[in-house]
Amino acid sequence: MGATVCHHGRTAASSAGSLRRVRPIPSIRPSNWHRSASSSTTPAVGEPVIFSGIQPTGIPHLGNYLGALHEWVKLQDNAKPGTKLFFSIVDLHALTIPQDAAQLRQWRREAFATLLAVGLDPKKSTIFYQSAVPAHAELMWILSTVASMGYLSRMTQWKSKLQLPEDATLEDSEARAQLRLGLFSYPVLQAADILVHRATHVPVGEDQRQHLEFSRYTANSFNHLYGPIFPVPEALISPAKRVMSLKEPTSKMSKSHADERSRIILTDPPSVIHKKVKVALTDSEPTITYDPLRRPGVSNLIEILSHFEGVSCESIASEYRTASLRALKEHVASRIADHLQGIRERYISIMEDKSGYLDSVAQQGAEAAQANASVTMQQVREAMGM
Amino acid sequence: MGATVCHHGRTAASSAGSLRRVRPIPSIRPSNWHRSASSSTTPAVGEPVIFSGIQPTGIPHLGNYLGALHEWVKLQDNAKPGTKLFFSIVDLHALTIPQDAAQLRQWRREAFATLLAVGLDPKKSTIFYQSAVPAHAELMWILSTVASMGYLSRMTQWKSKLQLPEDATLEDSEARAQLRLGLFSYPVLQAADILVHRATHVPVGEDQRQHLEFSRYTANSFNHLYGPIFPVPEALISPAKRVMSLKEPTSKMSKSHADERSRIILTDPPSVIHKKVKVALTDSEPTITYDPLRRPGVSNLIEILSHFEGVSCESIASEYRTASLRALKEHVASRIADHLQGIRERYISIMEDKSGYLDSVAQQGAEAAQANASVTMQQVREAMGM
Repeated sequence: MGATVCHHGRTAASSAGSLRRVRPIPSIRPSNWHRSASSSTTPAVGEPVIFSGIQPTGIPHLGNYLGALHEWVKLQDNAKPGTKLFFSIVDLHALTIPQDAAQLRQWRREAFATLLAVGLDPKKSTIFYQSAVPAHAELMWILSTVASMGYLSRMTQWKSKLQLPEDATLEDSEARAQLRLGLFSYPVLQAADILVHRATHVPVGEDQRQHLEFSRYTANSFNHLYGPIFPVPEALISPAKRVMSLKEPTSKMSKSHADERSRIILTDPPSVIHKKVKVALTDSEPTITYDPLRRPGVSNLIEILSHFEGVSCESIASEYRTASLRALKEHVASRIADHLQGIRERYISIMEDKSGYLDSVAQQGAEAAQANASVTMQQVREAMGM
Repeated sequence: MGATVCHHGRTAASSAGSLRRVRPIPSIRPSNWHRSASSSTTPAVGEPVIFSGIQPTGIPHLGNYLGALHEWVKLQDNAKPGTKLFFSIVDLHALTIPQDAAQLRQWRREAFATLLAVGLDPKKSTIFYQSAVPAHAELMWILSTVASMGYLSRMTQWKSKLQLPEDATLEDSEARAQLRLGLFSYPVLQAADILVHRATHVPVGEDQRQHLEFSRYTANSFNHLYGPIFPVPEALISPAKRVMSLKEPTSKMSKSHADERSRIILTDPPSVIHKKVKVALTDSEPTITYDPLRRPGVSNLIEILSHFEGVSCESIASEYRTASLRALKEHVASRIADHLQGIRERYISIMEDKSGYLDSVAQQGAEAAQANASVTMQQVREAMGM
């Protein structure tokens, strides 16, 4: 959640990528809630509250979709009655790196429209721009007063964003010269995003575990000082595999790769999808086999197919063993195009709408999120003497 | 402003402490506004906007009053039409050090009642609790994204609050272990306090100059990146002398001194004021002279008298040269008691009021401050693409 759309860790090849094998949203089982619920520093367990966020960085790609957005929709559609779901366009996080205002304005709308297009339903989920809910920033300051500088300085994201080595410290003159407070402190805003909604479960990618750990630590630190206000949120690590770049299949599909053909955008029309898959980097071995380490390009295509067909990568490999690579690619492209067609159509319809639909959904979402957050902030203020 | 009630630098003995000599609020002269107003990165000059804040740390003492609160009232009462004045109980800043919730709740009310009691008029000034205006925290996050970690780490207040040496750095394990993000980053919240109201002038003590410089740098940095949104605020350094401890007259009067007789609280009744002044530390020289370096105790009493009588310390010393120390003390105590009587009565009446007067003034102040801050936030959001 939070600063980047979540990508999920590659699962062991043997457990393959069948959606049918996705465990049935484990967190929604009461027995899995709050390992620490019996502690006096955590509040009593209530209904589950799910929070996740996506940065506005343009229309999401297939990796964002399969790794995060599609999982959100499944969480929404399988949620037990009483579950609250909050999904946010975390535009305040986007500001930690310089942004062009006109582009950010466009990206925010695109991200919001995408969440609706993929199937998040404003009647079931609260969808909102983070910047429209002041309580996120308010709680951020409050949590700042308990967040340890030592812990923050050991976190790695500010280093990677500045392309500094992992062992860089605040004493490095290069680090100091470049680093802005926002980039350094944004895990605290991320903790506020989660805690202000009293989230119990947070769908995150494997690479965001460190940040959820920080949120858990922050919740515990606050509860220890001021009483049991915040549930200690649990990670929902998706079993979905991450989608690799079509041009460099040892790296994740990414919006920042120079070659646009390395990624499939959720609104790509079928012809573009077919073209991108056709020129996807593979190898020249004569048969189709599933071997992510030795044959990352072909294996990535098989994994994508496995996502959509709900069968294991091994089955697909075996089915296509003697087929041509071209046939496999055609099939993969068709599957993607078919699945994305409805999303693309809904996206276009939302973006072309002139009745103010998007703004009105955003407004409703902001009000609902602010109302939920206000309950937390009132408890926080009371506990702190304000 | 901001984190501590302002104390003002001791002016040279020869310029003495007569209020008549206070320069007539220099900042309110148009010619003094915005040294950088012609630059394209600062907005056009409008009406003056004055902001200052006081931390809720109990009922203020005479040093707080003469150094800051009394100056605020004079700024209010001498303001040209069109001047906007904002005075805030900066309770979010109080959280940078651990607080007892019940005590903080009480201190907030006491501070608010004091501002009213000393003569701030809700019809002329906007008086509000910082935590009641979410835009302060919202702008704090925004400014975080431009605030340099290097600059913040060189500031001294977090070091002094943790009783670390001035050359302590973030690499010191002791510093890291103790330091919380809130204490480290609070100059950015202070900048937000000022800038969110588009303040042009900030009454500060000499010891708060560093923080106002940071706010000026932050306004310039933001304006440089996003266009001319924020006036670059100017310091109003009060010419008032600081009031020294009655028990340790080489140190400022302070609420943290162990001996309560070292300070006069604004609500002390006359008998207590007389008692505290009577036992004030002086020396055993037979005559009264004004010599702050060699005779700090006697000179402090003379300076206090000079505040209230509006004549120079030298005149007072000459007038009392052959009087007894006891007579001087009696006179000083009477003057203080007379001046504070109305303040004490108004304070008691406000605190004993059962009609909800204080809450209603606070509510009106919060709404007015939020309305003013919203204008800024809308400009900021527009400039940043949100």
